[in-house]
Amino acid sequence: MKVSVISTGSELLRGTTVNTNLAFLGQALTAAGFSIERGAIVPDSGRSMTEALANLVPVSDIIITTGGLGPTSDDITRQVVCEFFGLKLMEDPELRKKLEAHWLCLKRGHAPEALFSQAQVPENAVVLENRNGTAPGLWLNTQKNGCSKIIILLPGPPSELEPMFSEEVMPKLTAIAAERTFTEHFMVAGAAELMIQQQVEAVIGYLPVELAYCASAEGVRVFLTGPDRPLLKTKAAELKKLFGIAVLANDSLSLVEEVSFQLRSRKFTLSTAESCTGGMIAAAITDLAGSSDVFKGSIVAYSNEIKGKILGIPGEILIKHGAVSEECVAAMVDNVCARFDTDAGIAVSGIAGPGGATEDKPVGLVFIGVRVKELAEVRKFNFRGSRETVRNRAVANAFRMLRELLFRQ
Amino acid sequence: MKVSVISTGSELLRGTTVNTNLAFLGQALTAAGFSIERGAIVPDSGRSMTEALANLVPVSDIIITTGGLGPTSDDITRQVVCEFFGLKLMEDPELRKKLEAHWLCLKRGHAPEALFSQAQVPENAVVLENRNGTAPGLWLNTQKNGCSKIIILLPGPPSELEPMFSEEVMPKLTAIAAERTFTEHFMVAGAAELMIQQQVEAVIGYLPVELAYCASAEGVRVFLTGPDRPLLKTKAAELKKLFGIAVLANDSLSLVEEVSFQLRSRKFTLSTAESCTGGMIAAAITDLAGSSDVFKGSIVAYSNEIKGKILGIPGEILIKHGAVSEECVAAMVDNVCARFDTDAGIAVSGIAGPGGATEDKPVGLVFIGVRVKELAEVRKFNFRGSRETVRNRAVANAFRMLRELLFRQ
Repeated sequence: MKVSVISTGSELLRGTTVNTNLAFLGQALTAAGFSIERGAIVPDSGRSMTEALANLVPVSDIIITTGGLGPTSDDITRQVVCEFFGLKLMEDPELRKKLEAHWLCLKRGHAPEALFSQAQVPENAVVLENRNGTAPGLWLNTQKNGCSKIIILLPGPPSELEPMFSEEVMPKLTAIAAERTFTEHFMVAGAAELMIQQQVEAVIGYLPVELAYCASAEGVRVFLTGPDRPLLKTKAAELKKLFGIAVLANDSLSLVEEVSFQLRSRKFTLSTAESCTGGMIAAAITDLAGSSDVFKGSIVAYSNEIKGKILGIPGEILIKHGAVSEECVAAMVDNVCARFDTDAGIAVSGIAGPGGATEDKPVGLVFIGVRVKELAEVRKFNFRGSRETVRNRAVANAFRMLRELLFRQ
Repeated sequence: MKVSVISTGSELLRGTTVNTNLAFLGQALTAAGFSIERGAIVPDSGRSMTEALANLVPVSDIIITTGGLGPTSDDITRQVVCEFFGLKLMEDPELRKKLEAHWLCLKRGHAPEALFSQAQVPENAVVLENRNGTAPGLWLNTQKNGCSKIIILLPGPPSELEPMFSEEVMPKLTAIAAERTFTEHFMVAGAAELMIQQQVEAVIGYLPVELAYCASAEGVRVFLTGPDRPLLKTKAAELKKLFGIAVLANDSLSLVEEVSFQLRSRKFTLSTAESCTGGMIAAAITDLAGSSDVFKGSIVAYSNEIKGKILGIPGEILIKHGAVSEECVAAMVDNVCARFDTDAGIAVSGIAGPGGATEDKPVGLVFIGVRVKELAEVRKFNFRGSRETVRNRAVANAFRMLRELLFRQ
């Protein structure tokens, strides 16, 4: 069944909000054997939304909308969808009571009438409970030009959409799935996209498998998609054997997951000492549930004073070589492992830019040090790009270096 | 002039990559007085891409595509666009030479012919130089059904797209802009969307100003859009006066920018002690260029051992009250300010979930402490939602609390 997603919200087109809902829905649907065929992003305007429905309804079995279900005047998804499909909107007395009760708790006086637009429900729609906000979601079985369509209206805030989709929508969707498309994927750490493609295509040949690649600072992600699940599994296994140790374990597509897994399976602990990455490595590791098994903590030593006082970098290193040097990073990783009493460590110091460069230390110069037990290594990088790019590349390469050192252990 | 963006890449629909390009382009174009009217996201398939062009070209003056310019077989944007507009593709000998030279540097043997698909240029196109990758961008002045259209093809990786857009595309776009739409915006910290809307609408009435709101854990962002720039400026100033101190300074839309600005203007320094946010607060602050003026560093004390050993939290607090307690967070913020010798501090400890909860300490329980000179405050929160949501809300509320304390100084 073909799924399309219409994301509504002028803030998505103005760039003040990044559309993470599409990625969330993509991951969840792909894992369940559905595929999103199209995405549209439209401002909070009835005309644009109607146009998107007109474009996408004919080519989709299921349409998911995100956003525009709240109480303010720019929340118009309910009305536009009902007009498009010729459905009546009616107030649900149960929902009105719930909204009233919620408003009372906020102790903000008399409830404004606009609040109750959220109690409007299209005829025959199923209400999807919102445990994390006020606007309920809606599930509609309807028709357009004689074809059955499922329309699912979800709230915009990810904190409301994500649990509602997992708890209320996914069980209903898997129950009705007829034909499915499956995907196998794996990631090859630190590889060149063209090289990977040549080897993958030699294995797949003319088999009914659709191939896709996605290159990043971490490596190349490879996706095999098609209707024949056993074939996909066989070929993915063959390819993973071919690429060997470069393939991340557990079909993981992210180096931070891989590094956490490799540390956990060795019962190793990790600490980090960060300068130019400013806590990004620690934040990435602790983003994973259960990271307290492997991660003890970090010292973000953003100023030289803190590198000396808290991390214990000798003044002579800072004076002679500077904070952005092989010597400093080597001492950072040694000291953080010693102070935090961890088996493994990562240290990063560099010039993320746009300021801070000197004649012999340009923007993008980053030293990364890793340690696993008695093995340690420091490498020098010259990254190109913006502050954000330099920082992201530093994080990716720190995880790559730690992974390699774990395998040499 | 109406701009639409077509983002290509199956990884965007599978959810393995979040589409940050749209947000980047939205911000840059909005700031320059353009507005993105539509966004489409399509897989790496010629049919879907052609369909998106057919839907969006008639309603747009400018179409920007992102992705699909690389050397692999799923990179088909060039070909699809040329077929749609009936343009010839020809090899650019200059580009071929550059690609050959670049390949030589990589020392990977003979260059595969697929590499040179990146040297194919549509007739009369302007080549946009790519300083951060191999695939050049393309600018096309063409026609469809007798109407002039500008088509801009950009590479997918943000590290290549962002500098190319800023350096090569933006100057060309501003030179041709005829009519523009302007936007004024501001953010009201920690406010309820419905309340803000009522006050904004009372001021704007029936003036030719389009209103939009975007609520988040940080507060409500308000956008005024329209063709009359002086009117927008007057009304935005009036509204900002109305909301007073709750409005972030410098038209900032983010609390971290605001907090950095308020610290800098007082010449105050900041340190953080993080447990469940695991470095996210430090990472957010250091994401801003020039943050070394105000930020000295952080201790990410993820384990209790580190809270004791490195942050100096007394064992009796950890034993009697636990790490997730008012007492622990109060000591964390005091100690980090003392050790790092900073004027201001933030400390966070909580249960982000899904694991780690106990009978009296549920998932979502978070204590946040802030200090500015001799003023200090700790608050208890019960956040709802996923691990990611709990962590994001903790970060937003930490910045809100610090901001409030700075104003009470």
